[in-house]
Amino acid sequence: MNAPDTFTQLLALTREPFPASRKLHVRGQLHPQLRVPMREVALSNGEAVTLYDTSGPYTDPTADVDVRRGLAAERSEWIAARADTEGYTGRQPQSIDDGGRGGEREVARLDDLRAHAAGLQRTPRRARAGANVTQMHYARRGIVTPEMEYVAIRENGRREWMAEYLADEERAQRLRGNPMGASIPERITPEFVRAEVARGRAIIPANINHPELEPMAIGRNFLVKINANIGNSAVTSSIEEEVEKLVWAIRWGADTVMDLSTGRNIHTTRDWILRNAPVPIGTVPIYQALEKVGGVAEDLTWDIFRDTLVEQAEQGVDYFTIHAGVRLPFIPMTARRRTGIVSRGGSILAKWCIAHHRENFLYERFEEICEIMKAYDVSFSLGDGLRPGSGADANDEAQFAELRTLGELTQLAWKHDVQTMIEGPGHVPMHMIQANMEEQLKHCHEAPFYTLGPLTIDIAPGYDHISSAIGAAMIGWFGTAMLCYVTPKEHLGLPDREDVKQGIVAYKIAAHAADVAKGHPGARARDEALSKARFEFRWQDQFNLSLDPETAKEFHDETLPADGAKVAHFCSMCGPKFCSMKITQEVRDYASAQEGMAAKSAEVRAGGSEIYIPLKKG
Amino acid sequence: MNAPDTFTQLLALTREPFPASRKLHVRGQLHPQLRVPMREVALSNGEAVTLYDTSGPYTDPTADVDVRRGLAAERSEWIAARADTEGYTGRQPQSIDDGGRGGEREVARLDDLRAHAAGLQRTPRRARAGANVTQMHYARRGIVTPEMEYVAIRENGRREWMAEYLADEERAQRLRGNPMGASIPERITPEFVRAEVARGRAIIPANINHPELEPMAIGRNFLVKINANIGNSAVTSSIEEEVEKLVWAIRWGADTVMDLSTGRNIHTTRDWILRNAPVPIGTVPIYQALEKVGGVAEDLTWDIFRDTLVEQAEQGVDYFTIHAGVRLPFIPMTARRRTGIVSRGGSILAKWCIAHHRENFLYERFEEICEIMKAYDVSFSLGDGLRPGSGADANDEAQFAELRTLGELTQLAWKHDVQTMIEGPGHVPMHMIQANMEEQLKHCHEAPFYTLGPLTIDIAPGYDHISSAIGAAMIGWFGTAMLCYVTPKEHLGLPDREDVKQGIVAYKIAAHAADVAKGHPGARARDEALSKARFEFRWQDQFNLSLDPETAKEFHDETLPADGAKVAHFCSMCGPKFCSMKITQEVRDYASAQEGMAAKSAEVRAGGSEIYIPLKKG
Repeated sequence: MNAPDTFTQLLALTREPFPASRKLHVRGQLHPQLRVPMREVALSNGEAVTLYDTSGPYTDPTADVDVRRGLAAERSEWIAARADTEGYTGRQPQSIDDGGRGGEREVARLDDLRAHAAGLQRTPRRARAGANVTQMHYARRGIVTPEMEYVAIRENGRREWMAEYLADEERAQRLRGNPMGASIPERITPEFVRAEVARGRAIIPANINHPELEPMAIGRNFLVKINANIGNSAVTSSIEEEVEKLVWAIRWGADTVMDLSTGRNIHTTRDWILRNAPVPIGTVPIYQALEKVGGVAEDLTWDIFRDTLVEQAEQGVDYFTIHAGVRLPFIPMTARRRTGIVSRGGSILAKWCIAHHRENFLYERFEEICEIMKAYDVSFSLGDGLRPGSGADANDEAQFAELRTLGELTQLAWKHDVQTMIEGPGHVPMHMIQANMEEQLKHCHEAPFYTLGPLTIDIAPGYDHISSAIGAAMIGWFGTAMLCYVTPKEHLGLPDREDVKQGIVAYKIAAHAADVAKGHPGARARDEALSKARFEFRWQDQFNLSLDPETAKEFHDETLPADGAKVAHFCSMCGPKFCSMKITQEVRDYASAQEGMAAKSAEVRAGGSEIYIPLKKG
Repeated sequence: MNAPDTFTQLLALTREPFPASRKLHVRGQLHPQLRVPMREVALSNGEAVTLYDTSGPYTDPTADVDVRRGLAAERSEWIAARADTEGYTGRQPQSIDDGGRGGEREVARLDDLRAHAAGLQRTPRRARAGANVTQMHYARRGIVTPEMEYVAIRENGRREWMAEYLADEERAQRLRGNPMGASIPERITPEFVRAEVARGRAIIPANINHPELEPMAIGRNFLVKINANIGNSAVTSSIEEEVEKLVWAIRWGADTVMDLSTGRNIHTTRDWILRNAPVPIGTVPIYQALEKVGGVAEDLTWDIFRDTLVEQAEQGVDYFTIHAGVRLPFIPMTARRRTGIVSRGGSILAKWCIAHHRENFLYERFEEICEIMKAYDVSFSLGDGLRPGSGADANDEAQFAELRTLGELTQLAWKHDVQTMIEGPGHVPMHMIQANMEEQLKHCHEAPFYTLGPLTIDIAPGYDHISSAIGAAMIGWFGTAMLCYVTPKEHLGLPDREDVKQGIVAYKIAAHAADVAKGHPGARARDEALSKARFEFRWQDQFNLSLDPETAKEFHDETLPADGAKVAHFCSMCGPKFCSMKITQEVRDYASAQEGMAAKSAEVRAGGSEIYIPLKKG
């Protein structure tokens, strides 16, 4: 099979560093072994701008990457040093884990993939008897883990280069953010991270079986994060594509990635993804459990589900979406909806509940699930199985009844020191978005909110990355900690490589807009640096500071292809003869020279409107 | 030259009706001669949905269109019937009108274009001596013009089909909009339109020399409108392209189009555009005036500017951007900005002011400009020449000093019954957007606000249609009447055909999201119809009800090409074996059958959270 070749070719593309960029690593202080990656962009005027970097070793030319061996396990020693875990002979893989017996060709191919992935096998670890290995548990005992310091360094970034851009006092006052109840410190300390994790206001998804992880935090007092979904499906796509999509997704800025595979080869796909993932990986275990029972929801049992949780926890999944809030009494509330139950997990459990006329077994077994979570430090992402599937169903009783239940379950999870975030909608018109945030804060005790969009309208299939980026930016500003992306293919088909990129860029825009609005310290420094470059016609710097340098440069080339145009002191809008920015420079020179005018303007500042000279008539 | 051939080919593309759609015309009652165009979409379940239609005769297969002759002048008789205008020998075209002498080849080509456009020449009309022909003047005298009734019919659309979708009382209550101070009646009457125009809260841009116009209104109590900019530039593009871009822009939903041409052939390009435009056309006359003085701003004079206003008014331009608020004392306020003055018109006038150290002549001659406007019913779009060019400069003293001046000028324009709207930013972080709307309402007396975006961040060149659609949706909800689109090429180059479409679709999303949030009656009916089609797996109906049916269908085909998939009761996300929407249907059947469950859910509704059964432990 030549799949690996195309695969290698694909992957090669995503290993190129960004233009004018180099990877640098910041050392820890409490934990000197830490090497926190950042991206440094060298500007043509000698400045260097440092950016948050989710891309992992892939964009580091000096890193030796082999996806069949997996990434270096830097976290292993941090975990070992805590001496509260043990290696053990994990659950034996079963053919059912990959969706049962396929045709002969498929089996052959699967063996082939497993062989290729032989180097990906790890001995699983779990908490020693009686131990609890969650970051929340350490935090509550006052321990600042390497993961916590790592997050603090990463969230601060390098403030040195920002100083010049944030110095102007008048501007700082005028642009001061509106945190909407968030309390973001001027500087993120390791102790602040610990305190936020201890009170459940932030999580650090970090399974002890995912040592390849570069830790990150999800919480309203940190940078707004985004998640990208990948995963093969019953209909199409292959393992190689999924791994390449992972690398592609983090290149453009995905902070976490969910593997929503639903077809065959689920287990093997997950091995490949986890061993090559520097970001937290989330899953929806009920999807695999359903495959194990041949897709018949009513045949699901606690034993099969429990076995699936252990299987995935041993592989290193960092957070599980658990739809424990889809309670029997809430299901009829969806009957009169315009679009009923659209969450896949939600509908699986609804079907199970009505088939057995019994309460959701995830709700009844919730504390047993907690026992598994704390043995591996898997975080909860409490699923919103009853989220609205259209604006018409937004904020209805089914949605909010489930949300209140998720709040109840959050306190139960916290009783076990299990890290928890709450999933949210979905489809919500603009004027109804704030109520979602308020209800979540009220009932879920500030556990991080993790929303899908929301989409603000329903008439834009093919452009729902845009209709949802609007809602995502607003709810991010209001306090949502992580935004799950939506691609242009939403409602229509499976996203390809380009769709994944389009969805991620739209969500980086939404998340950054939220950070700027909240007034996250330093958030707007990058905007100022790019605006300065734009004003000074440093075209290359403008491209290199943007979310997608390639596209920015390509668009400029379409109108003004000449290399000369990259340093030209005009742009295509006005042309060389006349340029507004050029004139502004003249205005600036003129104004600074004109004491008289400066005085006059001071006068205007003081006097306000009444000093306008009367208009000449006729 | 074979340009016309390619041109005809291009144009042919844009004449195809939308799938399953036909053009229908609703008759007037006060004015039975009115034929208000709408688009009817036939659904596969026998329903028919009627949509607002900006595309003009181009999407009507029965219409005989020849761009070299121009569209039918249906408004001519309405104007003639008012008997307050006169035809006259207009200003003679001068070579300078098209940007002075070009090379020989260019002159030859221009003559050719003029020859082709011979059928486009009209005898200009103006108000009889002492008359005022503005819609505002009629409105204030209690006259309901055909234009006003046309607007009322158009804004209401056909409510019949909406009834079923808006019937549910619980849903209507839950989704009730937040008008943010707007007062939109359940039904738009011609009298309501008159009253809104009379008090200046809405405008109907409708030059008496633009009889091809299909009238529309811009005001906070009407549907939110969007504008698309076209226009050749010093750097590139041709007349044919511009006309085709116009037809292309209104096909996708542009409510008005601004011709921002700055290169040569400005006059001739405008002839072509206006005679073929069913939507209002706006311009920035100072651009052409600058061309007439060879691009040297300080050489501009009132006479040259005045002559340009008359030239364009005679051609039929419906609204002029006039930067009369760029006052001498405000200019130094921009000196310390991150990006100075980025408005082209603003910087031209700033340059003129500082070169002569004199007050802006547009400000001093404002009432003379009003005299011209009211003789043709050209509306003011008071330009924000000092708008911020980056988030760093948002809401600063220069911007707001100019805004207060625009409010002052609005009252002066209203003294002459000249219709007026106010231009707004630009670049504004999310948390600073509402202040823009509040200041505008406060100082500009509810004159319609017309904003560019605003862009919420500065780091997304190549994607600024998205970074600005976020701000546009929010400010549209807050009360902005028209949103000027931003294309993906903003800051980088000139938009091509595809960029224009991308910008328009992004802004249709923003405008519709605003209408839904404001609670415009019937706005959400289309969302409900599409959601219902989606839930019932009526794929073709879902495509045909969307903003861009072609793209929606194309994206679906990429994953499930088979025609069978268009009627399949599953989608590519879950595949045939398991489908959440299918299960929802089972839930619905089950729930409706279960009296007991219904009762239980009623109990939950009543009891709220305290009735949750205690969790089983262990």
